[in-house]
Amino acid sequence: MTRAATGERPASGAGTSRVEFGTCPESYRHWRLAVNGQVATLVMDVAEQGGLVAGYELKLNSYDLGVDIELYDAVQRLRFEHPGARAVLMTSGKEKIFCAGANIRMLAASSHSWKVNFCKFTNETRNGIEDATVNSGQVYIAALNGTASGGGYELALACQHIMLVDDRSSVVSLPELPLLGVLPGTGGLTRVVDKRHVRRDIADYFATKAEGIGGKKAVAWRLVDEVVPRARWQDQVSERALAIARSGREPSGDPAGIRLTPLDKTRTDDTISYRHVSARLDAGRGVAEITVRGPVAGPPASIADVHAQGADFWTLAMTRELDDLILDLRTNETEIGTWILRALGSADRVLAHDRLLLANSSDWLANEILLYLKRTLKRLDVTSRSLIALIEPGSCFAGSLLELALAADRSYMLFGVFEEQDREATPAAITLGPANIPGPPGNGPLPMGNGLTRLQARFHGDPGALVAAEKSAGEPLEAEEAERLGLVTFAPDDIDWADEVRIAIEERASFSPDALTGLEANYRFAGPETMETKIFARLSAWQNWIFYRPNASGPDGALRAYGTGKRATFDRKRV
Amino acid sequence: MTRAATGERPASGAGTSRVEFGTCPESYRHWRLAVNGQVATLVMDVAEQGGLVAGYELKLNSYDLGVDIELYDAVQRLRFEHPGARAVLMTSGKEKIFCAGANIRMLAASSHSWKVNFCKFTNETRNGIEDATVNSGQVYIAALNGTASGGGYELALACQHIMLVDDRSSVVSLPELPLLGVLPGTGGLTRVVDKRHVRRDIADYFATKAEGIGGKKAVAWRLVDEVVPRARWQDQVSERALAIARSGREPSGDPAGIRLTPLDKTRTDDTISYRHVSARLDAGRGVAEITVRGPVAGPPASIADVHAQGADFWTLAMTRELDDLILDLRTNETEIGTWILRALGSADRVLAHDRLLLANSSDWLANEILLYLKRTLKRLDVTSRSLIALIEPGSCFAGSLLELALAADRSYMLFGVFEEQDREATPAAITLGPANIPGPPGNGPLPMGNGLTRLQARFHGDPGALVAAEKSAGEPLEAEEAERLGLVTFAPDDIDWADEVRIAIEERASFSPDALTGLEANYRFAGPETMETKIFARLSAWQNWIFYRPNASGPDGALRAYGTGKRATFDRKRV
Repeated sequence: MTRAATGERPASGAGTSRVEFGTCPESYRHWRLAVNGQVATLVMDVAEQGGLVAGYELKLNSYDLGVDIELYDAVQRLRFEHPGARAVLMTSGKEKIFCAGANIRMLAASSHSWKVNFCKFTNETRNGIEDATVNSGQVYIAALNGTASGGGYELALACQHIMLVDDRSSVVSLPELPLLGVLPGTGGLTRVVDKRHVRRDIADYFATKAEGIGGKKAVAWRLVDEVVPRARWQDQVSERALAIARSGREPSGDPAGIRLTPLDKTRTDDTISYRHVSARLDAGRGVAEITVRGPVAGPPASIADVHAQGADFWTLAMTRELDDLILDLRTNETEIGTWILRALGSADRVLAHDRLLLANSSDWLANEILLYLKRTLKRLDVTSRSLIALIEPGSCFAGSLLELALAADRSYMLFGVFEEQDREATPAAITLGPANIPGPPGNGPLPMGNGLTRLQARFHGDPGALVAAEKSAGEPLEAEEAERLGLVTFAPDDIDWADEVRIAIEERASFSPDALTGLEANYRFAGPETMETKIFARLSAWQNWIFYRPNASGPDGALRAYGTGKRATFDRKRV
Repeated sequence: MTRAATGERPASGAGTSRVEFGTCPESYRHWRLAVNGQVATLVMDVAEQGGLVAGYELKLNSYDLGVDIELYDAVQRLRFEHPGARAVLMTSGKEKIFCAGANIRMLAASSHSWKVNFCKFTNETRNGIEDATVNSGQVYIAALNGTASGGGYELALACQHIMLVDDRSSVVSLPELPLLGVLPGTGGLTRVVDKRHVRRDIADYFATKAEGIGGKKAVAWRLVDEVVPRARWQDQVSERALAIARSGREPSGDPAGIRLTPLDKTRTDDTISYRHVSARLDAGRGVAEITVRGPVAGPPASIADVHAQGADFWTLAMTRELDDLILDLRTNETEIGTWILRALGSADRVLAHDRLLLANSSDWLANEILLYLKRTLKRLDVTSRSLIALIEPGSCFAGSLLELALAADRSYMLFGVFEEQDREATPAAITLGPANIPGPPGNGPLPMGNGLTRLQARFHGDPGALVAAEKSAGEPLEAEEAERLGLVTFAPDDIDWADEVRIAIEERASFSPDALTGLEANYRFAGPETMETKIFARLSAWQNWIFYRPNASGPDGALRAYGTGKRATFDRKRV
């Protein structure tokens, strides 16, 4: 049994190979975070010998999952611990290089599932950077004091403003295709054309030109926003950051940040538990039974009390635990293909917590908590595991926690009670609340990546059903009514429950894991696509295919040949 | 040298293995087409021994590429030869089975590139069925007189109205995931939720239930539009078809169809030529040099003359040839990874042909020709080959033919003339015309699958550049101006031309073919996604990955194990 509190780092390939996502700035090996009034600076300075796994050196600020775990932590802490920072300068601690992208030897040596999971997490962090810029007014600026190539440039693309030093050698580049036979697959291709609006033919040329583009041409082609002579660099970067910080809005509410204290996590081979969230892992059945517990008490009286509770406030504490659990299971338990989701506790108290946050959504902390819950639920949406919600007596699928059931591929809700267990129990009910429903402005507090609420996606193309469901808000709905409104998939009674649920779970474990991943990735995203969903679908699905093909990953493929002096050998068939 | 006129069928696996797409109803082995007034009937009656390639039997109306080639031909002929048909009943000539989907032994024995290309063509035909329904008022009705499973149900999903016989045994099903470890990947997953608005959790259950759903539940779940008792079947189907046919609009213009005469095609190992389109294949360089020739004379005086010219009318003739060429190269020349596109002739005459069609777009034939050109250009957009347009003196990239350059990944336009070749030549010019620009109603006559014109996609997020480009309509633009307006990628002069073009082509041939496919599939579709683009991106990219994984296609994978009595062995890691 390991007890991994936030701040501990996993051994790099030695001892347990389990990856932990908890860390804190004092433990960073690859980043330095400094906050000076309204401007924060995040300096990437990767420790060459600090790889998460043995077998590669992180030269030239190249990164692996360990580097990205620290970046994710820094982005989260900036939002919660430093809400006053209105501009975040991302720059490099190395001479001449901003970041060389994902480490190629690491990629070449990694299993397919590792590569795909790594890229997914990288994408989520970059989406989080954009979310901070747009929804928290914490604007990221990429200050490229040297070359940014591949994933390094993709990181810059996630920033609102890109500055590049003009020294006749520093460039931005996407050399993945010409050098490695893979795509700029962590958002690069999508953001170049869909965010920065680089013309597609120029983008094509750029992504085949391994040596990159710098100077005025990089500006003319919209690859960066400005180039700055080396002599003016420090001044111009500081001025730009200050100007952006000052032009933003101040966070409203108590300006003091809250401390993201280490999670109270206990991890064994078959259990993961925190204060509000726990999971039992059953490797034999390929199942994780996840339980989220509702608040044990009503919410505090005022938003000031939420600030005072800080990381102990239930919604935030639960979200942090759920986030960590998702990342742990995705990375460490790849053969556990089905996640059973339960929510236990008082629906009223969940709804009361939601109401407190929504009533104070102009307060920066309430806003951050809702945004974090939104991002965590989005993580669930792109998780390649079958999600099955079980709604039983004693459950509290209401408001924000009902989103778990709406995120699931299927939900089973007990009709009546378990006669033998507790004949007098109150039957399960689900309750829609304001957290589930669009309000002004925008698309509800917890939209999916496609911009729809989970209810809107569920009833895509069926506005009558959507209205009927939304009208029920506030009413506890027992199984029959919930099924009639289309809010749960099946509502078996006590007699059928055990068999139906068992068969569903056993079936899931008998199917091709690959086909399930593809099925779920399609059905979960009915309706419109956005830049964000395009990154997880059009771009990532192609990249996953390319990663798996011998032209990239075979013994003579480009990823394996890189740096050996040998040229890759390609099967020239176009597919 | 083979000379394959439309109507000839390729030998099934014997002799040349080259696939030809030309056929005609008299040669069909798998379909019967009958037109009775306003109602056409398309009967699927697959010849078990009629597989395109040896090694499998097409039992239970299962299909292979050969069956789909005939279907495509029938759909095209219905539009051009039978414009009066307002409803098309698609049904089966077999007892008890409508269609069992793609033949599984064929899939199991096929190479990856064959599977992917086959699915792409299948998808294009189904999109064409929807295009006929929506844009030509030729409404497809699936009359499922027996079970429709897998690709059989996906074919039904492409129809506007689905009728299922209610006989206690006929069902619709998507058994791909539980039985074969792959996706319902020819539109199935997307159309179930995005077109028929089946709720995602119900859709999930349906796609894991190999035995399918019939009767009233199939209606309640929106999987079909109506179920009809066997006794009422013939009457109800006829009545429904007549009612739908009568409720539609009559085609305007001369109601007589035109005859799609056999293409005049000459095919050798390294040339493909038709009247207006030709290609030289260079296997060594991996290049096909494609030349489209503009009209040799001005357009006829009136739309009546277009009807009289029929299949000889330049725009239609050229489009049919280009369509056949794309299909030939995609299927038969998988190692030719770069297509060079040239257009030679008179820009004025191209524009005059465009104007004639657009001025008469309410005429059914003019409408059909424009829609066919639109579909053919869309085929180019989803073609997994690098497309490079070369714009030289004597070229006619104007209006509809300019779309070829706009579809290309890059374009090179000669600045000035080839001094040694013809110092007195007129420099190349491109001209935008009404065929390139949105007009009321809708998004221009030749939109891409994402609903944008190619100009809109090119200048996605840059409205100023779009307006400036559109304003130039009608003006011949020489290289400098075309480059300034962003309409071509590069404009090298005589001195640089040969090297620049050669390097671009050689580079392309040196890159990973897989990565190029992924790059192009991302950059070509900046901006919004539609159901159609979701099918080619989210769905197909996942399916391609799944097809390539051992869980499907390995020696113990589900595709190979099917029907052997052995269970598939899965790597249980979730990716």
